[in-house]
Amino acid sequence: MRKLRITLAQINTTVGDLCGNVDKALDAVREAESLGSDLVIFPELTVSGYPPEDLLLKPGFIKGNRSALERFVENVGDITAVIGFVDGSGPIYNAAAVVNRGEIRCTHHKMNLPNYGVFDEKRYFAEGETPQSFMLGDIAVGLNICEDTWVGDCPYCSLYSDHHVDLLLNLSASPFHTGKVHERAEMLRRRSLEGNTCIAYTNLVGGQDELVFDGGSMIYNRRGDCLVNGPLFSDAMITHDIVFDGDSPKSVPESARITLAETSKAPLKPLQSSEMSADEEILEALVLGTRDYIRKNGFSRVVIGLSGGIDSTLVAAVAVQALGKENVVGVTMPSKYTSDGTRSDAEILANNLGIEFHEIPVSTAFDAFKDSLSGLFAGRDEDVTEENLQARVRGMLLMALSNKFGWLVLTTGNKSEMATGYATLYGDMAGGFASIKDVPKLTVFRLCWLFNEQAGSEIIPESVITRPPSAELRPDQKDSDSLPEYDILDPILKAYIEDDMGVDNIVALGFDRDTVKRIVRLCDLTEYKRRQAPPGVKITPRAFGRDRRLPITNRFRP
Amino acid sequence: MRKLRITLAQINTTVGDLCGNVDKALDAVREAESLGSDLVIFPELTVSGYPPEDLLLKPGFIKGNRSALERFVENVGDITAVIGFVDGSGPIYNAAAVVNRGEIRCTHHKMNLPNYGVFDEKRYFAEGETPQSFMLGDIAVGLNICEDTWVGDCPYCSLYSDHHVDLLLNLSASPFHTGKVHERAEMLRRRSLEGNTCIAYTNLVGGQDELVFDGGSMIYNRRGDCLVNGPLFSDAMITHDIVFDGDSPKSVPESARITLAETSKAPLKPLQSSEMSADEEILEALVLGTRDYIRKNGFSRVVIGLSGGIDSTLVAAVAVQALGKENVVGVTMPSKYTSDGTRSDAEILANNLGIEFHEIPVSTAFDAFKDSLSGLFAGRDEDVTEENLQARVRGMLLMALSNKFGWLVLTTGNKSEMATGYATLYGDMAGGFASIKDVPKLTVFRLCWLFNEQAGSEIIPESVITRPPSAELRPDQKDSDSLPEYDILDPILKAYIEDDMGVDNIVALGFDRDTVKRIVRLCDLTEYKRRQAPPGVKITPRAFGRDRRLPITNRFRP
Repeated sequence: MRKLRITLAQINTTVGDLCGNVDKALDAVREAESLGSDLVIFPELTVSGYPPEDLLLKPGFIKGNRSALERFVENVGDITAVIGFVDGSGPIYNAAAVVNRGEIRCTHHKMNLPNYGVFDEKRYFAEGETPQSFMLGDIAVGLNICEDTWVGDCPYCSLYSDHHVDLLLNLSASPFHTGKVHERAEMLRRRSLEGNTCIAYTNLVGGQDELVFDGGSMIYNRRGDCLVNGPLFSDAMITHDIVFDGDSPKSVPESARITLAETSKAPLKPLQSSEMSADEEILEALVLGTRDYIRKNGFSRVVIGLSGGIDSTLVAAVAVQALGKENVVGVTMPSKYTSDGTRSDAEILANNLGIEFHEIPVSTAFDAFKDSLSGLFAGRDEDVTEENLQARVRGMLLMALSNKFGWLVLTTGNKSEMATGYATLYGDMAGGFASIKDVPKLTVFRLCWLFNEQAGSEIIPESVITRPPSAELRPDQKDSDSLPEYDILDPILKAYIEDDMGVDNIVALGFDRDTVKRIVRLCDLTEYKRRQAPPGVKITPRAFGRDRRLPITNRFRP
Repeated sequence: MRKLRITLAQINTTVGDLCGNVDKALDAVREAESLGSDLVIFPELTVSGYPPEDLLLKPGFIKGNRSALERFVENVGDITAVIGFVDGSGPIYNAAAVVNRGEIRCTHHKMNLPNYGVFDEKRYFAEGETPQSFMLGDIAVGLNICEDTWVGDCPYCSLYSDHHVDLLLNLSASPFHTGKVHERAEMLRRRSLEGNTCIAYTNLVGGQDELVFDGGSMIYNRRGDCLVNGPLFSDAMITHDIVFDGDSPKSVPESARITLAETSKAPLKPLQSSEMSADEEILEALVLGTRDYIRKNGFSRVVIGLSGGIDSTLVAAVAVQALGKENVVGVTMPSKYTSDGTRSDAEILANNLGIEFHEIPVSTAFDAFKDSLSGLFAGRDEDVTEENLQARVRGMLLMALSNKFGWLVLTTGNKSEMATGYATLYGDMAGGFASIKDVPKLTVFRLCWLFNEQAGSEIIPESVITRPPSAELRPDQKDSDSLPEYDILDPILKAYIEDDMGVDNIVALGFDRDTVKRIVRLCDLTEYKRRQAPPGVKITPRAFGRDRRLPITNRFRP
């Protein structure tokens, strides 16, 4: 009976941390050895971190990555480790090295380079030409990197291919969006059946700027059954004994033959895998994305302007889960337009979360600005200028706290606001990270209910969730004065932003034409604001930012 | 004797303005007809504007571009027009249509898609497979789009190729950077010699977000001589009679035969072409880039915080050239750290430029902020927090003017500041457009001297240029307190940013290691600030923004 013990090392690398990433990988090798694994597989571009972007244009970076890889190789013994790195120096390749007994036994170059959505791989890499495979004992093993398995023509994934293997390894860095976990599982199921091959898929985990890699590494057998399903949103070593039935393939064009060492194999504890709902996934993504942005950039504490509204509430709740309550500071900055309800809700929330809380009024600075401008503004009515001034005074106060105490400001805008420009540049948009910028307002509501449900108590006051949303920048203001209700707005925005639909097609979904035209126009006109927004966690199939690259100067009317 | 009258229609299109771009193109067709031209050639992606970015993912955009092209085609008579558009609907192509007598006679698909620097063409387009050529009377004409001619293996550009043509047309959208004009001319000279072919090259002109297309359309004969050299940085119709010696090529795989109509050819006025120095080119690029960003986005007036320093001075001078003095407002916002010299220089400059000028003191709002924060800041020394507060009060005042009067704020930071983060987010970085953000400080100095030289008088007070640079945010502050002198700083930044050199290599150029390490580190650490900066004109081979895509979360130490 042919069998292998295999470990998927779902580790959290950091872009550019060449030494640190290799240290982590070597720790994982030691752990896999202690479990008696024959094979340990890492995520895509383990050594460099993913995505390294224009660091790949720096010769010193490529060289450093090579040196770090060499240190890894020297420290691998009888176990076989498959690790991602940048190969080459003229043309460079997104590569996977098969390492055993201090040597690189074979190297695969990624053949299918994604260049859409958030991906720019054709900007950097040359395409690999030949798929690589090797014999590990009497098991034929093929190599894939991420997209290689997604495209339909993977040479390993065909029953009739010369490259037929027992086991296909996939090193991935596949970022999260809602629904992606299921897409991935379905793709692996299909490929394993098409290829009559077992697939071991190791995905990266962790946050990198706007992306969250959600882990969820998996092993499928050749009948399309999921053998093991790694945890989402956390580091994990996923170890499994795979049994291969039948004979080994006859004609594998292998580039290496690796003999298996005798190892003592301790019995494996069964892995607890738990299904998550879509909203649970989003909440976890926000927590991990926020935590990793803050920590990997050397911050420890954050400050949030708590208005008593639902957006800042969710941001604070996420921050507490990400960083611990001792690392979150809430500041309320009431004005004369702030209702008693929101004001007290901000304080109740802070108490419920157990975070440091301060109050700074905005009127002193707001009045000073109005005074300074009274000459130039003489004879003119108050308008959006004064609304923005209030929001900007709040932004400046938070930035002053950031500068004085080294706290990073989390901004609180959601995707519905970002899309329509219902936010003030240098005001509520001022800060280092925008945790919920890709979360539509309707999802914000649901996540708040979910948060309380998970907590088992009303941490978030229900009045925060049920009160009609308002920016509270003028008397009796409500979001619905300027925007349609969110159950109208959010589907229109999804159709326009995620599905690239034009006005006619959106109207055909059942929406009012004037409303659709106004929302689409608002979205186009406020591109300039989004360009100056801080980064935030991508959770939808198309986020603002590198995922959606629209010109500011743009006369197209969709 | 075989000859053609040919017009290079160097027009200024706008991204997304499908109707407007075709209107412009049809006006150019009429003008070329009135001159008796046989052939008129437009820039790359004439109909859609360039670069359309993710508009290309919208099916409605592709369809609209096709309808606009059809209207163009219907309105072209005996003249032959070659126009750029987006072809296809499943896979799409960056295409050029040869239009004559109401029909598209042949279509070329761009074969070489740039996917580096500011270009993302592989994100959108499929590659063309076969180069297209056609017979125009007895002249064999080949088609190229931009990059097609830059790569070395253009099939028209080989003496021994089956595709040898008399005349190669190139439709381009080639953005400006310093030195590009000469690179382009040298490339065309070499290709015309290699291919033994005449080349007619039409480049786009105008600003689009961060890019400036500089025009400079050219015709080379097959001996590598430049026959005509179109103006830089302005619209132009460049008409020339080309005489082809020898017989027509024997074996052109032409896809169309177009008969020439008899036209009355009025004598041509010789085109005045003038050489520009590198600094003159930069100044013109800043003017055109600023003008087009402002105008194409529907603004008419701009406001600038005039500190009396050299950066805001250059921005104001550029704005006056771009928009006219009646459309530029200067505001001085002195604090107690503002010297009498800079304060009076700001006013002298405004008077010399003839612009509207206002003074608003910052102390009222600055003191109000300090008062509001006095509780939380009790017992702590003043530090960069208070410096930033001053800069942010100024930013907020300018933004209030922008909101109240509809003026766009021009920010004033130069590239040396942007690179080192020597600028305040939401302070002096607050605004809609950053005219000089890609201009290194040493170049700022030179451009100010040049401006006075061109004006023939001391519009810019010499004291502005010669005073040691200072942010004036604390007593007796100078840039050189925090940064090395600019003749040290700028070459280090160029080596790091434009040439991707590591610390060791930069030190080997003759710089102090600690200085290099500090500057490189500052540049990396302040990526988060640049991510929130407004767009500005690219003038160097590598600008910040889409041209240089570095992660914020980045532990690589170069």
